[in-house]
Amino acid sequence: MTRHAFEPTEFHLTIGEHQPVLRVQPGDTVATSCVDAAGLDRHGEKVSDGGNPQTGPFSVEGAEPGDTLVVRLDAIRPNRTRGHTGEVVAERVVTPWFARELPERSADDTDWWELDLDRGTARLESPPAGLEGLNVELEPMLGCFGVAPGGGQAISCATSGQHGGNMDYRGFREGVTVFFPVFVEGALLHVGDCHALQGDGEIVGSGIEVSCDVEVTVDVLKRKQIAWPRAENDEFVMAVGNARPLDEAVQYATAELMRMLRQDYGLDYRASSVLLGQLIRYDVGNVYDPAYTMVAKVAKRYLPRR
Amino acid sequence: MTRHAFEPTEFHLTIGEHQPVLRVQPGDTVATSCVDAAGLDRHGEKVSDGGNPQTGPFSVEGAEPGDTLVVRLDAIRPNRTRGHTGEVVAERVVTPWFARELPERSADDTDWWELDLDRGTARLESPPAGLEGLNVELEPMLGCFGVAPGGGQAISCATSGQHGGNMDYRGFREGVTVFFPVFVEGALLHVGDCHALQGDGEIVGSGIEVSCDVEVTVDVLKRKQIAWPRAENDEFVMAVGNARPLDEAVQYATAELMRMLRQDYGLDYRASSVLLGQLIRYDVGNVYDPAYTMVAKVAKRYLPRR
Amino acid sequence: MTRHAFEPTEFHLTIGEHQPVLRVQPGDTVATSCVDAAGLDRHGEKVSDGGNPQTGPFSVEGAEPGDTLVVRLDAIRPNRTRGHTGEVVAERVVTPWFARELPERSADDTDWWELDLDRGTARLESPPAGLEGLNVELEPMLGCFGVAPGGGQAISCATSGQHGGNMDYRGFREGVTVFFPVFVEGALLHVGDCHALQGDGEIVGSGIEVSCDVEVTVDVLKRKQIAWPRAENDEFVMAVGNARPLDEAVQYATAELMRMLRQDYGLDYRASSVLLGQLIRYDVGNVYDPAYTMVAKVAKRYLPRR
Amino acid sequence: MTRHAFEPTEFHLTIGEHQPVLRVQPGDTVATSCVDAAGLDRHGEKVSDGGNPQTGPFSVEGAEPGDTLVVRLDAIRPNRTRGHTGEVVAERVVTPWFARELPERSADDTDWWELDLDRGTARLESPPAGLEGLNVELEPMLGCFGVAPGGGQAISCATSGQHGGNMDYRGFREGVTVFFPVFVEGALLHVGDCHALQGDGEIVGSGIEVSCDVEVTVDVLKRKQIAWPRAENDEFVMAVGNARPLDEAVQYATAELMRMLRQDYGLDYRASSVLLGQLIRYDVGNVYDPAYTMVAKVAKRYLPRR
Repeated sequence: MTRHAFEPTEFHLTIGEHQPVLRVQPGDTVATSCVDAAGLDRHGEKVSDGGNPQTGPFSVEGAEPGDTLVVRLDAIRPNRTRGHTGEVVAERVVTPWFARELPERSADDTDWWELDLDRGTARLESPPAGLEGLNVELEPMLGCFGVAPGGGQAISCATSGQHGGNMDYRGFREGVTVFFPVFVEGALLHVGDCHALQGDGEIVGSGIEVSCDVEVTVDVLKRKQIAWPRAENDEFVMAVGNARPLDEAVQYATAELMRMLRQDYGLDYRASSVLLGQLIRYDVGNVYDPAYTMVAKVAKRYLPRR
Repeated sequence: MTRHAFEPTEFHLTIGEHQPVLRVQPGDTVATSCVDAAGLDRHGEKVSDGGNPQTGPFSVEGAEPGDTLVVRLDAIRPNRTRGHTGEVVAERVVTPWFARELPERSADDTDWWELDLDRGTARLESPPAGLEGLNVELEPMLGCFGVAPGGGQAISCATSGQHGGNMDYRGFREGVTVFFPVFVEGALLHVGDCHALQGDGEIVGSGIEVSCDVEVTVDVLKRKQIAWPRAENDEFVMAVGNARPLDEAVQYATAELMRMLRQDYGLDYRASSVLLGQLIRYDVGNVYDPAYTMVAKVAKRYLPRR
Repeated sequence: MTRHAFEPTEFHLTIGEHQPVLRVQPGDTVATSCVDAAGLDRHGEKVSDGGNPQTGPFSVEGAEPGDTLVVRLDAIRPNRTRGHTGEVVAERVVTPWFARELPERSADDTDWWELDLDRGTARLESPPAGLEGLNVELEPMLGCFGVAPGGGQAISCATSGQHGGNMDYRGFREGVTVFFPVFVEGALLHVGDCHALQGDGEIVGSGIEVSCDVEVTVDVLKRKQIAWPRAENDEFVMAVGNARPLDEAVQYATAELMRMLRQDYGLDYRASSVLLGQLIRYDVGNVYDPAYTMVAKVAKRYLPRR
Repeated sequence: MTRHAFEPTEFHLTIGEHQPVLRVQPGDTVATSCVDAAGLDRHGEKVSDGGNPQTGPFSVEGAEPGDTLVVRLDAIRPNRTRGHTGEVVAERVVTPWFARELPERSADDTDWWELDLDRGTARLESPPAGLEGLNVELEPMLGCFGVAPGGGQAISCATSGQHGGNMDYRGFREGVTVFFPVFVEGALLHVGDCHALQGDGEIVGSGIEVSCDVEVTVDVLKRKQIAWPRAENDEFVMAVGNARPLDEAVQYATAELMRMLRQDYGLDYRASSVLLGQLIRYDVGNVYDPAYTMVAKVAKRYLPRR
């Protein structure tokens, strides 16, 4: 149960079979940091090209294809006091004719926010009319993280898939445990893209983008096979689908949740139909990236004992 | 501000320009009842064909095309102690190959629930293995209601559109105020399809279907033009999109929410982009009906004073 | 085998259970005319509101729910020498960001074409730069026609469904036989929306819109049940799907074609998989209307004898 | 204008920045061969894992990001007399409930065809009932080919994108010239996945899969920037969109065709709207792979002189 401190100096813009920066054991904790989506570090200096640069990958001993990697998000802490967001909602999230009424994007296409890390709040540096008093509570999360997808693929950090990636789901916060299918030896965990806050859908193409300190504890579930990322927090068990259109993300997430309820709770598909029909919740991850993200979840208090 | 009691004897399976059963004034309240989706009344007797039979329509004096109809849901109270749900999740909400693993539907395709109306809970009459102890809290809602769509259309209560209809959104509960565009003189409000409880997405094709007593208070906003249903509760303002795929429902809902923030709160699209980018929430209505339903909403506490 | 001449004076903007204008026998021919999509007749005079006004409905004796209505398109002949088209491609058929580069629509949003009915060609009255020499061959077709959808529905002529409607498929030309499921007694055939020419997808929201003379011969296949419109010409058998997104239209059309091959040619789904896998053709009807249209077809020369 | 003969011994299952196997000059011809999708060579021997193994990549001198790579398909010739196809249509191309009626796939999930390469025809080795006499004409094509996508990505040969890839469009035949955007130095052309025949949509997940001899002539258009693959044959100019849902593939293809008509023929978007509205044709590539493929095209005889 070693705690490894790792300070990154190189970053990846794809998630793939890159050279591991560290080899850890199941049960170990990695304390590291991530630059923001644009490659700006804790000092606001550009140390990487933009595009959700990833810290890692971290290789977990013993993880093999067919296993499940467990990633507990112990800490996600913004480590500077300025964050930036996109200026205008994406054309894609409004009707095509409404999109023509949207304001043009400016050259820099960025709003800056001042973060009060002690109070956990943020304010716009130059609020548009009507939002002068806007003060928001921070809810730091990881937008893009995951494991090497296997088959020699190197998948852009702009998008997501069964390996995780750029899911931009605001539920991936401190205290949540995320499960990934393992596709390659060592799993090869990448982490990055902290958002100090983000609305559902990431509809301006960003959360409040900020660099951060991250701490994760990893584990391996041998011979437990899952198809899509899953997660668990105090209240819910969850399954993630990443695809276009959103309907397909719904399909992947719902099917994976039903497989999970069978695998972990012994509920056959007839029983999970009854349960989920009246109690399922869907959370929208992003509707901005090349693949959209939908999360299907159900409260643990309705589930039979494992 | 009259309170009208109306007991229905005929029901409609389309929402359209049917003969009004009652003419009321803006500000009036209508206390009435609805049979369940299958046409079963408070005594469990079949008094209509199935397909979300509607009570009404109620004509509101002075409502004209170009106005907005206000419908406050004062009460939605199940009025019998048995409700029914679909047995198996719809093929459409899981992946096509997973669908082949789903159990066959049985002839009657129904689970029955016993409702405890005093405690506001329900239990399955014949729970499948693993769900013997399942006890759920009721959250009664209206699945299908809306106004005549205009243009001579009579739209099936299986589906939804700008006129409302079969949205199956669990947020349409007691205490919520819903706004509809008016397409015909008198607006012609139809109400029906009570669910004692329903998960997001209505993925088994039903909530806990039950007959109910309904009380609504109507009003008219003259010359206020909206494109899609909107709603407001204590915490949120909301806009609804009904379409396929879900991505398009997202587009209609998001654009309508931005129009609302401009119309009602003076936020231009640049300002609402900043606000919604970090604070919007999406709720999934149904992903089962011919048109899917997505709700875009934002907490009122972040909005400028009207 | 009577030939009925019928000159319409009233038109419908929905397809539904309207009062029949004529009752005919199976085998009869109806010679009638249609105004254009905007309600302009053969003299260019506006005799109806716009929105694909329909001639009819024609009731066919003996047609009952569960039967199939046969409609042979004997003649579709534009009957005036000017037609009009939309000016700019729909935002919906290009990417959302490309849509912002499209020119604004002008007030009238119309190009006019001069039709040479003898030669079967057309020229733009005011061609934009680069298209001065454009001379196109006419391929007259019906954009919107179908049968009453049943269940008391009256469906807008803007859209389409299992009953047919606004499919805007350029394959519905003279000499083609179209088959519709019958939902109500007499089937209630509506016809309208002639296009002198139309590209795939109807991407400017119109073909060359023109009034026309139409002649159809109807028949009834008793107790032959189909789910979606089907068609046949000299070369192909076809099945139509009308839905959003286009993927769903593909699903309806493909499944209906496989049902047809089983019903009419005795090919089970294993055999039709082998055949269609290498020989199916898809034609895009419209990608503009509320429901998109996809046609799945296969050449008759590959099919076993009926 | 050298003609290079290259016999592959290694294959790639991703399209990416792999080590070039050959460096050629603009204007050169490469004569090579491809194994089939399953990795079977001209002798039916398995020399690669399955998944559309690619021959190459070939580096073209002088090709840089921002240029266009020209690939003329001089010859695509199956080089053995047996090909294989999938057994059952994909669940995804029929409705979810119809999918449950499809036969189960057998263990090997393969039909074999005997190819008569002299006559250019094929017959099933074990035809299912009703297809005993089926004799089809070969139309050899490349299913999967393209250029390195840049950004360090290595994209699975199961899917497609702006770089080309697994488009499975039956129009990519001998005599066609295909244009790709260049993302990396040398462009890095990969070729593979010959189909002796394929229906629209590749709905059984395969064409008649076969190894082949391929000859291509490459060229570079300096500083000509395109966003998606384009193509040209004797009759048509074409643009390709690869995405899900099919509606989005339509959007990419249509916008790219309009950009091409402006770039190459001087037609502004108003003029191309008029032209395409009445004359565009859409061809379905595949509706089976992770990204679907749609081709938008227009006959060259309607275009102004370049």
